[in-house]
Amino acid sequence: MSAQGDGDADTPVAAGRRKAGRRPGGPDTRQNILDAARAEFGARGYENTSMRAIARSADVNAALLHHYFGTKDQLFLAALDFPLQPRDLVAQVVGGGRDLVGERLVRFALALLENPAARERVLAVVRAAATNEQMARLMRGFMEREVVVPIAAALALPRPDLRVELAMTQMVGLIMGRYVIGVEPLASAPVDELVPLLAPTLQRYLAG
Amino acid sequence: MSAQGDGDADTPVAAGRRKAGRRPGGPDTRQNILDAARAEFGARGYENTSMRAIARSADVNAALLHHYFGTKDQLFLAALDFPLQPRDLVAQVVGGGRDLVGERLVRFALALLENPAARERVLAVVRAAATNEQMARLMRGFMEREVVVPIAAALALPRPDLRVELAMTQMVGLIMGRYVIGVEPLASAPVDELVPLLAPTLQRYLAG
Repeated sequence: MSAQGDGDADTPVAAGRRKAGRRPGGPDTRQNILDAARAEFGARGYENTSMRAIARSADVNAALLHHYFGTKDQLFLAALDFPLQPRDLVAQVVGGGRDLVGERLVRFALALLENPAARERVLAVVRAAATNEQMARLMRGFMEREVVVPIAAALALPRPDLRVELAMTQMVGLIMGRYVIGVEPLASAPVDELVPLLAPTLQRYLAG
Repeated sequence: MSAQGDGDADTPVAAGRRKAGRRPGGPDTRQNILDAARAEFGARGYENTSMRAIARSADVNAALLHHYFGTKDQLFLAALDFPLQPRDLVAQVVGGGRDLVGERLVRFALALLENPAARERVLAVVRAAATNEQMARLMRGFMEREVVVPIAAALALPRPDLRVELAMTQMVGLIMGRYVIGVEPLASAPVDELVPLLAPTLQRYLAG
């Protein structure tokens, strides 16, 4: 799991700050890029937004954008302040033995969600997707492309894309029930009690 | 399933309208009661709100409240405009054979959700619970009392309450993924393709 934004001592942002640089290199630049990214992604959707267009909107060089944020999906996640990289989620499913994929995934997700800072950022995204059609559209395109397609490609089962999405629905529903609505006893059940109940669901969706 | 509000030709409201009555009996009265109910439930929570307090706030007789809306949970659902009575949901699980409880419940929920008018009202409640802490608290107390407790009482399994809530998380997640975020292919998958994938999840939670 990749935490973002909790400390940036060794990032280009902090380096820029140390040099007291402005554009290019200062903290304003990073914020300008994130603001531009939110505006462009929001206006055009994930698929139709290019790194070049965001760079132009932020008035910086496209190379600087890549230097700060890497790929488009990483910039999108940074703009959302999302505490999880899709590649880490994909690795949980695709890497490691097929036998324990359900348990591995549930433990991975709950470890993230039990961290209050990460949880708050996940909840912010879930809330936004629940109430903002533009945000729902962004999440839809992003999830299909960055999570569903790569995991589905690794499943040797019929309808792998649908199976990945059903696994996602179980996890999103868990977030809603345990952390958003907070229904008891689910909200305060220990992780070790939830894992054996939830893992077989994910296991069946993802490994048949 | 009980649809509410789609037609009221034989309800006390319509009767009141025919008589052109005001208070007690006219359509204003029904609306006043619903407004008062929303305000009281919102301010105090489901548990701490009495029918008597709502009647007082709406300036009507408590007997009239019961005449129009029946029990407190029915009034709460009417205030939410929720298209499902908990007793119908409980009947799907508790009534009928244990062998097919998962499939029965998935088909029941999807039949409701595939109806556009009912779906919109369910989505309104989910969105409200996702973003409004007061609404989340209301739903939490209501669901625990009206859905989780009666179904859990009928399950002969360890941690029946947690199992009922995990079944609910799968359904709430399905609502989020299929109808709110609308991720493909989940959003347009036919019901008959979803049932065999989802039913075993509910079956295992509710029947072991």
